Amino acid sequence: MIETEITTILPELRAALSPERVIADPDVTISYSRDMMPLAPSGRPLAVVLPLNTAEVAEVVRICAAAGVPIVPRGAGSGLTGAANAVDGAVTMVMTKMNSILEIDEPNRLAVVQPGVVNLDLRKAVESRGLFYAPDPSSYDWCTIGGNLSTNAGGLCCVKYGVTTDAVLGLEVVLASGEILRTGRRTVKGVAGYDLTKLFVGSEGTLCIITEATLALRPKPAAPVTLVAAFASAEDAGDAVSGAVAAGLVPSLLEIMDATCIKAVEAKTGVELLGGGETPAAILLGQSDAGGAAGRTEMDLLEQVCLGARATFAYVTADLAEGRMLLQARRDVLPSLELLGTWLTDDVSVPRTQIAALIAACEAISEEVGLTIGVVGHAGDGNMHPTIVYDASDAVQTQAAERAFGLMLDAGRALGGTVTGEHGIGRIKQGFLAAEIGELGIDVHRKIKNALDPQGLFNPGSMFRS
Amino acid sequence: MIETEITTILPELRAALSPERVIADPDVTISYSRDMMPLAPSGRPLAVVLPLNTAEVAEVVRICAAAGVPIVPRGAGSGLTGAANAVDGAVTMVMTKMNSILEIDEPNRLAVVQPGVVNLDLRKAVESRGLFYAPDPSSYDWCTIGGNLSTNAGGLCCVKYGVTTDAVLGLEVVLASGEILRTGRRTVKGVAGYDLTKLFVGSEGTLCIITEATLALRPKPAAPVTLVAAFASAEDAGDAVSGAVAAGLVPSLLEIMDATCIKAVEAKTGVELLGGGETPAAILLGQSDAGGAAGRTEMDLLEQVCLGARATFAYVTADLAEGRMLLQARRDVLPSLELLGTWLTDDVSVPRTQIAALIAACEAISEEVGLTIGVVGHAGDGNMHPTIVYDASDAVQTQAAERAFGLMLDAGRALGGTVTGEHGIGRIKQGFLAAEIGELGIDVHRKIKNALDPQGLFNPGSMFRS
Repeated sequence: MIETEITTILPELRAALSPERVIADPDVTISYSRDMMPLAPSGRPLAVVLPLNTAEVAEVVRICAAAGVPIVPRGAGSGLTGAANAVDGAVTMVMTKMNSILEIDEPNRLAVVQPGVVNLDLRKAVESRGLFYAPDPSSYDWCTIGGNLSTNAGGLCCVKYGVTTDAVLGLEVVLASGEILRTGRRTVKGVAGYDLTKLFVGSEGTLCIITEATLALRPKPAAPVTLVAAFASAEDAGDAVSGAVAAGLVPSLLEIMDATCIKAVEAKTGVELLGGGETPAAILLGQSDAGGAAGRTEMDLLEQVCLGARATFAYVTADLAEGRMLLQARRDVLPSLELLGTWLTDDVSVPRTQIAALIAACEAISEEVGLTIGVVGHAGDGNMHPTIVYDASDAVQTQAAERAFGLMLDAGRALGGTVTGEHGIGRIKQGFLAAEIGELGIDVHRKIKNALDPQGLFNPGSMFRS
Repeated sequence: MIETEITTILPELRAALSPERVIADPDVTISYSRDMMPLAPSGRPLAVVLPLNTAEVAEVVRICAAAGVPIVPRGAGSGLTGAANAVDGAVTMVMTKMNSILEIDEPNRLAVVQPGVVNLDLRKAVESRGLFYAPDPSSYDWCTIGGNLSTNAGGLCCVKYGVTTDAVLGLEVVLASGEILRTGRRTVKGVAGYDLTKLFVGSEGTLCIITEATLALRPKPAAPVTLVAAFASAEDAGDAVSGAVAAGLVPSLLEIMDATCIKAVEAKTGVELLGGGETPAAILLGQSDAGGAAGRTEMDLLEQVCLGARATFAYVTADLAEGRMLLQARRDVLPSLELLGTWLTDDVSVPRTQIAALIAACEAISEEVGLTIGVVGHAGDGNMHPTIVYDASDAVQTQAAERAFGLMLDAGRALGGTVTGEHGIGRIKQGFLAAEIGELGIDVHRKIKNALDPQGLFNPGSMFRS
């Protein structure tokens, strides 16, 4: 079947794009077969296509639709759920060549971009004009806006600025029919019709292919004031987060790292994070971008909250280099854990009052499965990333890691949480999605999917089975 | 046909609810036949039902579905597009008896409410606990949360805090099958599956009936600092708005009133707004809730921006009574215009740089049709409400008003805007929605509608013709 399809559609695809942007060599296509989630299944692309513009995307969709060949859209491959993993017999459409920032409208604080623009490139371009694109996934230096949109990605900023959907004004998409639809608007407000924009954001490429986005920008925040606080237990750190909420604080970030993560970072960098002594059970990193005295006041208040929650150490600094160094420690967690083995990062979001309970559950799961689990996450919004370290060449450990991954999701749900705060469902959490939203919820998903993509053309098998 | 349906389903409805909450007396049902939009068509309800809980809603849906009788859901009737207007032969489901605040979770800053809760009642309940529910439509003292959700309502706060959808974490809804679906989550973040929550918000009761909502709350803002500035032309006021955006200001509200509105308010209240002298062409009202010195600094900066844009007068006050009085003048606009005739308020959102151009277009339309048009609106986000004053008993004036209503929407679209910033489409703007999103956009709407409500049970004729 695949052979037939190749012979049928490859010449058509090559005529529609250009031969060098239609890749069928398996030695090359394999490099487009996976994202960063080790456990997700993946196939071999029938072909990899790299369109340059919306018209080419539409033409590829029409060719594939006519031949009944599915399409998996893909950005940089930084995803953590296998949502962009290749499917046997499907075309993988790589959006990275559509990487133009089409417009930055400073007076109206918006940008229009193609999906292949790297998050950091957009950030830099707008920052040079005094503006700010808020969503900042950890992979911001290489992930693409299209991937951010498809997964509704989050980041460190979410506690104050929300996830990707909160920054999207409108989209241009190619539908399964090959037709080009514009959604949303260029205005700050607009409620004309169903919110198709927000339906498509986070739909993991199952409803359409995003070819352009109009994004809301913010004024560039003030230089941050940074707090670090250490705690003798995860409960105390959790109490500090609850205390910050109760005090009405809205920091621009509020991150947590447990002892496992702290030790891993210290081992990698050779620097003792808090200047030596016993490793704390957890540290909180907070920042305020309120500016000037207001930022200092906000972090001084957070320091008082932390000390009230029995912090063993707390320190506030307006020094930018110190702030950057502390944030770098947070960003170093995954690379540091990688030195200990393969990392498998989970994504579970709980009510902010349940952070300590989730950390305790992760500790129990770590003991139960006999694997190291480092807990790091966005404490300020309750979105935690407990990260399992294991030996991927060991079948028993791999199985234990997979088990721990699911147990932590179950624990999060039992605490009133959700099985994904910002990574999505992809090819790894379909069963957990079904457990969370129920058969009726899945049925509604299927109905919407079938209404917009009756042929099942787009990203089959991601999120749910249609 | 209607007679048959009445005899068929009335006894069933009365058995499912209770006889006094199933009203068929036309003298009573007529009071549920319209909202606040004078031009929208309306019919006579077959019956009005007032359910007390989700189970009753589901039972009514099942009874109506079996009999093929459509349902129009309705809140308080404060809408401005006829979206809740009765349809001949349909049951109007009034949600006002489902008016319990089910939960206020202070530590996680959220509330769970039934749809009939009045916006102001929720505001008061959470404010007493130091929390804040942001969306504040002008009708906040009598509109319901369910209506706010169905129309994705806005308000004065949007420039800083967004519209209703930005405050919704999850919903409970009854589908056209009579099944009860929960969407979303109780956590700050969550991206599990399609964003059904945001699809249903703003769907004007065409996809489901909302029976419960989980709403995100914010810390109660600090006491506001208020600015008022007067301008000799709308262009100057528009320049001030652009200047505020360029300066990176994010006031908690920024409203505009033109001379027509100022004079109407002065005539009604007998108080000269800015202490006498010539009526300015426009005034801007701004507030900052940044708190303390930060609020004063923000409004002082806005004052400088206004003076730089040739304001003829500018004044900043931290006095709460003065601030309230100025805001009251803004809220008095519609009641004041009502003394001059029937008001017909439009809702058009333009890029913030186009406010002055929209005001100029409204002036030209006013001259063209020979009717007074007062321009008032949310300048900070570009969402304007030019309001036509006419004699509703005069057929020629009514026709002219309807014409002006449409011309202003066309003008807004020509300026890069949208035909609704916060009121919705309802039974008055279907043609304008189709013009804005195109036949393909409408087709996608129809596909989603047919997928979830194949029988066309929910609110037929609102938003688009399915």
